[in-house]
Amino acid sequence: MKNIDHIGVAVKDLEASELLFKNFFGIEPFHREEVASQHLKVSFFELGNTKVELLFPTSEKSAVSKYLLTKGEGMHHVAFLVEDIFAEIERLKEEGFKPLSEEPISGALNKLVIFFHPKTTNGVLIELCQKIKD
Amino acid sequence: MKNIDHIGVAVKDLEASELLFKNFFGIEPFHREEVASQHLKVSFFELGNTKVELLFPTSEKSAVSKYLLTKGEGMHHVAFLVEDIFAEIERLKEEGFKPLSEEPISGALNKLVIFFHPKTTNGVLIELCQKIKD
Repeated sequence: MKNIDHIGVAVKDLEASELLFKNFFGIEPFHREEVASQHLKVSFFELGNTKVELLFPTSEKSAVSKYLLTKGEGMHHVAFLVEDIFAEIERLKEEGFKPLSEEPISGALNKLVIFFHPKTTNGVLIELCQKIKD
Repeated sequence: MKNIDHIGVAVKDLEASELLFKNFFGIEPFHREEVASQHLKVSFFELGNTKVELLFPTSEKSAVSKYLLTKGEGMHHVAFLVEDIFAEIERLKEEGFKPLSEEPISGALNKLVIFFHPKTTNGVLIELCQKIKD
């Protein structure tokens, strides 16, 4: 595992939260994207080699929508950058960690991503992400 | 603001959580410290230029102790590395963000740190940290 790639923050009003974090970080978001497979609109702020991702659900089907209902706005997940996501998934499964999907899926910013169940990771929803090679 | 420096994870059993994250990251913690002013024992894992800090309260006076009682184990805060913490505090106060202390305090790993109230930062407890010059 290389470094923290980003944290994801669940938000109820994307425009208001973009303005809030723009004021906090003193920079504009550098990327916006709709991730249809996860029913999300996302916005990224870049800080060195790390990022903050705002997560706004576009449907009640989104896991983030359920998160907002039960926990409210706040930190939703942390993502670690890896070089070989398939090898890491195999290693982690052998250690007893439970991925939330069988295979990695397409995430924002042209990455392969997989999440691990927070019950196996101390209450922390952990994402692994790997840049898809061009 | 330079990059995410670390995330802090509230834990109920430091030894068990060290083992869990050792297995997850595939590395040993590189630093342990007791932060008496915050009633905490902390353990750090290093991933590139970022870190994961396990936070174990040594007293009921610790804010992390209250966090564990109300929210359980999980992500407690995110910390951003800054070059001039005093200038950032002034800038952020002018933007309407509320620091939890008047001045930065001594944190782990020889750093000056300050926290901002999550009510002003979208439910996210944000720490700023700056390396104390030798």
